[in-house]
Amino acid sequence: MKLSHIEHIGIAVKDLKSAVAYYENVLGLKCYAVEEVSDQKVRTAFFQIGQTKIELLESTDAEGSVGKFIEKRGEGIHHIAYAVDDLSAALSELESQSVQLIDKQPRKGAEGLHIAFLHPKSTGGVLTELCENPNKTK
Amino acid sequence: MKLSHIEHIGIAVKDLKSAVAYYENVLGLKCYAVEEVSDQKVRTAFFQIGQTKIELLESTDAEGSVGKFIEKRGEGIHHIAYAVDDLSAALSELESQSVQLIDKQPRKGAEGLHIAFLHPKSTGGVLTELCENPNKTK
Repeated sequence: MKLSHIEHIGIAVKDLKSAVAYYENVLGLKCYAVEEVSDQKVRTAFFQIGQTKIELLESTDAEGSVGKFIEKRGEGIHHIAYAVDDLSAALSELESQSVQLIDKQPRKGAEGLHIAFLHPKSTGGVLTELCENPNKTK
Repeated sequence: MKLSHIEHIGIAVKDLKSAVAYYENVLGLKCYAVEEVSDQKVRTAFFQIGQTKIELLESTDAEGSVGKFIEKRGEGIHHIAYAVDDLSAALSELESQSVQLIDKQPRKGAEGLHIAFLHPKSTGGVLTELCENPNKTK
């Protein structure tokens, strides 16, 4: 498996508007998109910094992953997403190494990416996402 | 303040050796350095992925920040570090915006970087580090 860069870092926030204000006014980043991802029960805001995006995640449903995360641990870093060229091949390889997969097949994530999550039990407590950009030539 | 890229992501691990094995054998990254940072009471292992490093952090003292983090929350993502051109200027700017600083002055971190941490109370629960590379031309 060849990971090329960190595609994004997901950060769970209680209130998207005030979090966006912090990233813009204090850290000097620019929010370039806000998107609701109903599949993941979140509203997201994106910032580009170098090769990587900061993806702020506001829960839209207390039963979703981000809602539960905030209830249990409060706001904070939720997951790391790595960019990979061939997500299906990566998942097959991980499964052969007995890595526990949350998604056994790629599904659609924010920004049109194909994504899959690995279970933190297999990754040293780090909720890990792999992303393939279907518009990028392999 | 101008943040150029994500310098590294700090990940708290219980056992550096087995964590390095996971990042190398499962994720396919290459550990290029192991360093003890006595100031932060950790042993670190570094992996480069694109512009960013993964910095694994094994506690060397249960009373240190990483030791307490693992005791409270278990293994997982510990902090995000952003690269900044002028760390002293950035800290002054943050202080003028009433951001709570853990380090009011730059101090030496791993790999010879000048670093300072911002308090999670001011950053939406994200332990945030700023890094300046003193060997880089401003």
